[in-house]
Amino acid sequence: MMIETYSEIRAEVAKLCAKFPGSYWQEKDRNRDYPEEFVKALSDAGYLAVLIPEEFGGAGLPLSAAAAILEEIHAQGCNGGACHAQMYTMGTVLRHGSEEQKSTYLPKVASGDLRLQAFGVTEPTSGTDTLSLKTTAKRDGDHYIVNGLKIWTSRAEYSDLMILLARTSPKEEVTKRTDGLSVFILDMQQAKGNGLTIRPIETMMNHSSTEVFFDNVKVPAENLIGEEGKGFKYILTGMNAERILIASECIGDAKWFIETASAYARERSVFGRPIGQNQGVQFPIAKAYAQMRAAELMVHDAIAKYESGENCGAEANMAKMLAADASWAAGEACVQTFGGFGFAAEYDVERKFRETRLYQVAPISTNLILSYISEHVLDLPRSY
Amino acid sequence: MMIETYSEIRAEVAKLCAKFPGSYWQEKDRNRDYPEEFVKALSDAGYLAVLIPEEFGGAGLPLSAAAAILEEIHAQGCNGGACHAQMYTMGTVLRHGSEEQKSTYLPKVASGDLRLQAFGVTEPTSGTDTLSLKTTAKRDGDHYIVNGLKIWTSRAEYSDLMILLARTSPKEEVTKRTDGLSVFILDMQQAKGNGLTIRPIETMMNHSSTEVFFDNVKVPAENLIGEEGKGFKYILTGMNAERILIASECIGDAKWFIETASAYARERSVFGRPIGQNQGVQFPIAKAYAQMRAAELMVHDAIAKYESGENCGAEANMAKMLAADASWAAGEACVQTFGGFGFAAEYDVERKFRETRLYQVAPISTNLILSYISEHVLDLPRSY
Amino acid sequence: MMIETYSEIRAEVAKLCAKFPGSYWQEKDRNRDYPEEFVKALSDAGYLAVLIPEEFGGAGLPLSAAAAILEEIHAQGCNGGACHAQMYTMGTVLRHGSEEQKSTYLPKVASGDLRLQAFGVTEPTSGTDTLSLKTTAKRDGDHYIVNGLKIWTSRAEYSDLMILLARTSPKEEVTKRTDGLSVFILDMQQAKGNGLTIRPIETMMNHSSTEVFFDNVKVPAENLIGEEGKGFKYILTGMNAERILIASECIGDAKWFIETASAYARERSVFGRPIGQNQGVQFPIAKAYAQMRAAELMVHDAIAKYESGENCGAEANMAKMLAADASWAAGEACVQTFGGFGFAAEYDVERKFRETRLYQVAPISTNLILSYISEHVLDLPRSY
Amino acid sequence: MMIETYSEIRAEVAKLCAKFPGSYWQEKDRNRDYPEEFVKALSDAGYLAVLIPEEFGGAGLPLSAAAAILEEIHAQGCNGGACHAQMYTMGTVLRHGSEEQKSTYLPKVASGDLRLQAFGVTEPTSGTDTLSLKTTAKRDGDHYIVNGLKIWTSRAEYSDLMILLARTSPKEEVTKRTDGLSVFILDMQQAKGNGLTIRPIETMMNHSSTEVFFDNVKVPAENLIGEEGKGFKYILTGMNAERILIASECIGDAKWFIETASAYARERSVFGRPIGQNQGVQFPIAKAYAQMRAAELMVHDAIAKYESGENCGAEANMAKMLAADASWAAGEACVQTFGGFGFAAEYDVERKFRETRLYQVAPISTNLILSYISEHVLDLPRSY
Repeated sequence: MMIETYSEIRAEVAKLCAKFPGSYWQEKDRNRDYPEEFVKALSDAGYLAVLIPEEFGGAGLPLSAAAAILEEIHAQGCNGGACHAQMYTMGTVLRHGSEEQKSTYLPKVASGDLRLQAFGVTEPTSGTDTLSLKTTAKRDGDHYIVNGLKIWTSRAEYSDLMILLARTSPKEEVTKRTDGLSVFILDMQQAKGNGLTIRPIETMMNHSSTEVFFDNVKVPAENLIGEEGKGFKYILTGMNAERILIASECIGDAKWFIETASAYARERSVFGRPIGQNQGVQFPIAKAYAQMRAAELMVHDAIAKYESGENCGAEANMAKMLAADASWAAGEACVQTFGGFGFAAEYDVERKFRETRLYQVAPISTNLILSYISEHVLDLPRSY
Repeated sequence: MMIETYSEIRAEVAKLCAKFPGSYWQEKDRNRDYPEEFVKALSDAGYLAVLIPEEFGGAGLPLSAAAAILEEIHAQGCNGGACHAQMYTMGTVLRHGSEEQKSTYLPKVASGDLRLQAFGVTEPTSGTDTLSLKTTAKRDGDHYIVNGLKIWTSRAEYSDLMILLARTSPKEEVTKRTDGLSVFILDMQQAKGNGLTIRPIETMMNHSSTEVFFDNVKVPAENLIGEEGKGFKYILTGMNAERILIASECIGDAKWFIETASAYARERSVFGRPIGQNQGVQFPIAKAYAQMRAAELMVHDAIAKYESGENCGAEANMAKMLAADASWAAGEACVQTFGGFGFAAEYDVERKFRETRLYQVAPISTNLILSYISEHVLDLPRSY
Repeated sequence: MMIETYSEIRAEVAKLCAKFPGSYWQEKDRNRDYPEEFVKALSDAGYLAVLIPEEFGGAGLPLSAAAAILEEIHAQGCNGGACHAQMYTMGTVLRHGSEEQKSTYLPKVASGDLRLQAFGVTEPTSGTDTLSLKTTAKRDGDHYIVNGLKIWTSRAEYSDLMILLARTSPKEEVTKRTDGLSVFILDMQQAKGNGLTIRPIETMMNHSSTEVFFDNVKVPAENLIGEEGKGFKYILTGMNAERILIASECIGDAKWFIETASAYARERSVFGRPIGQNQGVQFPIAKAYAQMRAAELMVHDAIAKYESGENCGAEANMAKMLAADASWAAGEACVQTFGGFGFAAEYDVERKFRETRLYQVAPISTNLILSYISEHVLDLPRSY
Repeated sequence: MMIETYSEIRAEVAKLCAKFPGSYWQEKDRNRDYPEEFVKALSDAGYLAVLIPEEFGGAGLPLSAAAAILEEIHAQGCNGGACHAQMYTMGTVLRHGSEEQKSTYLPKVASGDLRLQAFGVTEPTSGTDTLSLKTTAKRDGDHYIVNGLKIWTSRAEYSDLMILLARTSPKEEVTKRTDGLSVFILDMQQAKGNGLTIRPIETMMNHSSTEVFFDNVKVPAENLIGEEGKGFKYILTGMNAERILIASECIGDAKWFIETASAYARERSVFGRPIGQNQGVQFPIAKAYAQMRAAELMVHDAIAKYESGENCGAEANMAKMLAADASWAAGEACVQTFGGFGFAAEYDVERKFRETRLYQVAPISTNLILSYISEHVLDLPRSY
C-alpha cells in the first residue's frame, strides 16, 4: 500500500475551494441552485478529467488522484456531489465503448464541453435490485426505443449525456439471469422534448436529484455500448470506483467536521472555561477522529487494490461503509459541540450534516454492504 | 403512577391535525413560514390554554393533558414547536406574578388574543451558563432600561409578550450567586421600534428562531414579576414542565417515525419480498419501538411526580434525554427504511428527521443532563 | 400502574443478603459450588414460596412481590439464579395441574421439602425452536417412557422435581402444529439411576447448568399435567412471568453496578482528584442509570399488565430486553470505572459482570425479542 | 506503508499453536495455571526473541514480526498474555542499558534462560498517574534500597527479572516534574526471600497478575539502567511498542471470534435453516469484520511509523483502542451467535471473551487514549 498523497494537487484544490466559502454554498442550498460556478472552476482546472487518459485529453491519473481531489473538496467545506460523477461515469465508455465512441465523447467530456454526469440505473420499483429494472429499449431498425422511468438520477438537469441501463431482452428470454440488460450513452439534450422529461426531486440536501421519464425516446443503435445484453456486468465494474470516491468525500467531510468542532471547542467558553476541556465534548470528537483515520486507511487499501487490478469489492464496500459511518459520527459530534449554533445555517455545520447523511444510503446502503460481506467474505448464506 | 390517557382529547387533536397534512408542512418548511393557520386552529380549539386555570379562561387541566396534546400533534406528523411555549411560558406569570399581572395577561393569553411564546433567557456568550448572562435591566424611576442581546429566542417574531430574564444587580454586589437576576413580562409590540430589534436565524428546521437585541428598551416597573433579584429561581421552576413537554413531543415524533417506517416496510417490495421481512430493516425499528415505550414510561413518571408536587428534576431530565434519544433512533431507522425516499421532501420523513434532531440539544443538552444525574443523583463531583 | 414497592420485604431480604457477602459468592464461584446455604436461608424465610397460594402453604403474593425479592437479591450483590426457578416453575402445576397434583406437590414445594427448579424444555438441536424438540414420551400402560436429551437445564443436580416437555405424538400425526407436546412433572430422585443421567456443563458463570439424558425413563401416567398434547401452550403461558422475573434480576444487577461504580468513582483518586469528576467516567454511569430507570418502569408496566390478566407478551419481552441491556451497560461502566480492579475477583465486579451477561441470551435472546416485536407489535412479516 | 506479512512465520506459529488446542487452555484456565509448556515451545522456537538483535542471540527482526507472531497466536485461539512481555520488556535494556548490561542480560533473555517479563510500574494509589508512584529506591553505598508496592505486575511469579521503576529523588527536589524516577533491572530470584514478596491476584481471566511488595529490597547500583532520575522517559519510549503488540493480539482475537462465529453460523440450524441466514446474526459479525480490518490497517500504520523512527504515539494509541474495540465487538457477536453455547467452557468462546475484555483497560484505558488524541492531536485543553 503506497498511496500517493498528491499534496500539491490538494493544495491547489484547497486554493480553488477558498473562492467558494460557506456563504456561497449557503445561498445555493437556500435556493436549491446548482453550483454552476464551482463546477466550472473545477472543470476549467482539469480536476474533473483526471481519470481520462491523456490521449483523450485528460490527465491520465489513477483513481487515487480523483480520491484526493474529492476528499480535499469536502475537507474544505465544499461539496463534490454536484459533479463527482463527471469523473467516473465516463469509465463505462472508457472500458467498454468502441474506439469511435471513445474518440467522440471522451475529449469533450475531458474539456467539459459535454457533461456526462447522469447515470440512469435505479428505478422506483426495483430499488437496489437492479436486475428487476423495467425500463425497456426495443430495437427498431437503426434505433432503440426507450420506455420507462428512472429515479435518483442526480444532476440530470445539468448533464448533456447519460449512461443508461435498460432491458433489451425480456427476463424470460435470457438464459443467464444477469443477461438482457444493455448500456447506452444517451444524448440528453437531443432527447429532451423528444420523449424525455425530467422531474426534480426536492430533497433534504441540495443534490439535484431527479426522476427521468422515457416515453418512446429514440436512441441511435450506435450509442449502444459494448455488446447488447451484457450491460449489467459493465455497470457493476464501475461501482467499486464510485464507492471508493464517495468514501473519499466522506473522509473529507469527517475531516471538516473534526477540524470545525475542535476549533469551536477550543474557542467557545462556557462556565468559565473552553467547552473543549469537557470530556463530554472532546471524547466524541476524538473517537470520530480515530474512526475517520481507520476508515481513511481502508479507502487507501481499496484504492491500492483497485489500481493494481485486484478484486477490491470487499475493500471498496467496507471503505464506503466505514467512511460514511465516520463522517456521520463526526457530524454528530460537531453538531453537539456547536449546541444551538450547530443548526444555524451561517456556520455550515447543519448543511454538511444534511449532506453527509446521504452516504449512509447512497450509492449503496449499509445493509447491502453488510450482506455483501456476510455472503462474499464470511461465506454465510444469502439472507434475502 | 396513574397517567390519564386523554383519549378523547387525543382523538380531537388528531382530527384537527388531519387538516394539516404533509403538504402543508412541506410548504411552510420550504418557505420558512410560520404555520399561522395551524397555530390559530389550536388556539381556537383551546388546546394552547389547557394549563391556564379556569378562572383565567383556560381549561385548568394538569400537565398530563398538555403532554398528551403535544405528543399527539407530533405523532400525527405535525409540529408543536411553533406554539408549544404558549402553553407553558405563562407558568412564570401564574406562579410568581401578582394578582393584577395574572388578571391582566392570563385571560388574553388563554383566548389567544395575546401570544406569550417568547422566552428571553439564553445569550450568545453565556450559553447554558444562565448565571453569566449579560443583559442588564437598570431601574430608572418607574421603568427599567434593558440593554443586551438574547439568542435562540424562538417565535419572537410571532409573539406579543416575552418573559425576559435580565440582570438587575451586578454579580459582585449580590451575596448569593443565584441572586441578582430578575424576570419581566415584556410587551414586544410596544418595544419593537423602541429599541428592540429581532433578527431571524436561518436554521436546519423551520423553528422561527431569532436573536433579539435590546438597545435601551424601557420596561415599566410594574412588569417586574415577583421580587427583584429572584428571577433565576423563578425561571428554574418552569424548566421541568418544559422538559416534560418537549419529551412528549419526542415521543410523538418517535411514534410517527415507527408507524411510518413500519407501514413502508410492509408495503415496499424489493428482491421479491417486503423489505420489512429483513431483520436488517425490522430490528432497528423494533429496537426504537422498545426504546420509545420505555422513554414514554419515564415521561409519565416525571408527570406523575410533577403533578403530585414532588421534586421531578431527575425524572424530567431523564425523560427529555431518553425521549430525544428514542425519537432520534426512530428517525434514523425510518430514514434508512425509506432509502433514497427518506430524503425526498414529499414523504415528510426528512422534515421530521431535521425537526426532531433539535431535541438532542434543546432545551438542554444531553451532556448537561448527564452532569445533572451524576451530580444530583449519583452524588459524584461536579465535572465543570 | 400502581406497583407495590414492598419496602419492608426488601429490607428483610437485604438483611438476609448481608449474611452472604462477596467472599461467600467468590468462594462458590471459584469452586463452581451450589450456594446451598443461601438457598436454604431464602427457603426458610419463605421467599421462594411467595407466589404459591396460601391454601398450599405459600404467601399467595402477586408477581410484583417475587420481582421485588429477586431484584433486591441482585441489588445486594447476591445471585438468585440458583433458585429463582423455585418461585415460578411451579406455576405450570398451579395453572394446569389437577387438584391432586397441586395438593401433592405445592405444599412441599412451598415448604422447601421438594425442590422444583428444573425446567426441561431446551434441547441441543432445537434451540429456541421448541416445537422441533425430539425428546419423546411414549405411553406404555400406566406409564410414559421418555427418551431424549435436554440441555441448559439449570439446577438439575439440585432439584427433586422437573417440569418436562416431551413429544407424545409425532409431528406428522397432529393436525395443529403446536399440538403433540406434553408436560410432565418428573420425580428426578426416582429417575436418577433409572435411566436419567445429568452432566454438568462448565460455564462462564456459576450457573449449575446441565445436560440431562433420558434413556427409557419411566414416568407414571398420573404425572402428566393437563391434557396430553397441549403442553406447548402450557409452557408458553409461564414464559412471561419468567421474563419479568429475570428482568427484575437485571434491574437489581444494574443497581448494584451503578452504586458500586459511583462509590468507587467518588473515592478513588488519580491525578489528584476523584476519578468520578471526569465526564469520561461519570457519563457512562449516568447513562446506565437513566437506562436502568426506564427499563425498571417497563418491568413495572409488564407486571401491572400481568397481574391484571391482560396480555403482557410485548411488555414482558421488552422488559427483559431493556433490563438486560441496562444491566450490561451498567456492568461495562462499572468495569471501566474500576480499571484493573474491575477484573480482580475480590471486588465482585467481574463476577457480577459474568453473571449478568447471561441475560443477553437467556431465557430468550435479543434477536427473538426483536422478531417478536416486529411481528406481533409492528405487524411486519416474520423474518425466519 | 509496506507491511511485511510474514506468511511463513505465521504458518509456523499456527503449526505450533495447533499443539495447544482449546482443551489445553481450558485446563490452564480452570486451574489458573501458567501455560508453561506453551511458553517453552514459543521460547524454544525463538519467537519470543525476534526483537533482540542478532548480536545478542535474537532474530533481529523488526516490530512487525513480533506483531505478526502475537496476532497469529491469538487468531489460533491461544493466548500470548503469558509471555508477550518477554518480547518487548527487554527493549528498555536494549535502548537505554549499558553495553555490559546488554551483554549480561540480552543473550540469556534471547535463549529463554532468563525470563524478563515483569514490568514493575503501576501502583495501587497512582494508577495511570505514573509520576505519582510512591515506591522509593534510596542509594545506600553501592546499592539502592527499594521500598514500596507494585500492582498488576503480570507474570511476576514466572519471571527471573523485572524492569522496575522507582523514585530516586523526592518530587519536591526535582526541577522538571518528569525527573526523579529511575529504572532498574531487578534479579527477582535473588530478591525473593530478601524483602520481595509476590501476592497473586485472582482475576476474571488467567493472566498471572500479582502485587509485588518491596521491603528493603537491595538492588546493586550497577543494575540502574541509564541515568538516575531519567527513568520516566525511558519507560515512555517503550510504551508505543507495547500498545502496538497488544493491538496485534486484539486483531488476532477478533479474527478468531469472526472465524469461529461464522463457522458456527453456517452449520448451526434452527427453525429449519442455518442461523447465519438471519441478518440479526450475520450483520453483527460482518460489522465486526469491517471494524477489525480497519483497525488492522491502523496497526500496520503504527508499525510502519514506528519502524521508520517517526513519532507513532497517536497511531499506536489509536491502533490499541480500535483493535480492542474490534475484538470486543467480535467477541460480543460471537457469544450472541453461539447462544447458550457461548458460555460453555468447551467451546472456548467464553474464555476468549473474558481474555479480550482486558484490553479495554490494559495497558492503557480508552479514556486515556481519547484524552491523548484530544490533547495531542486535536489541540484541545487537557481535561484532567
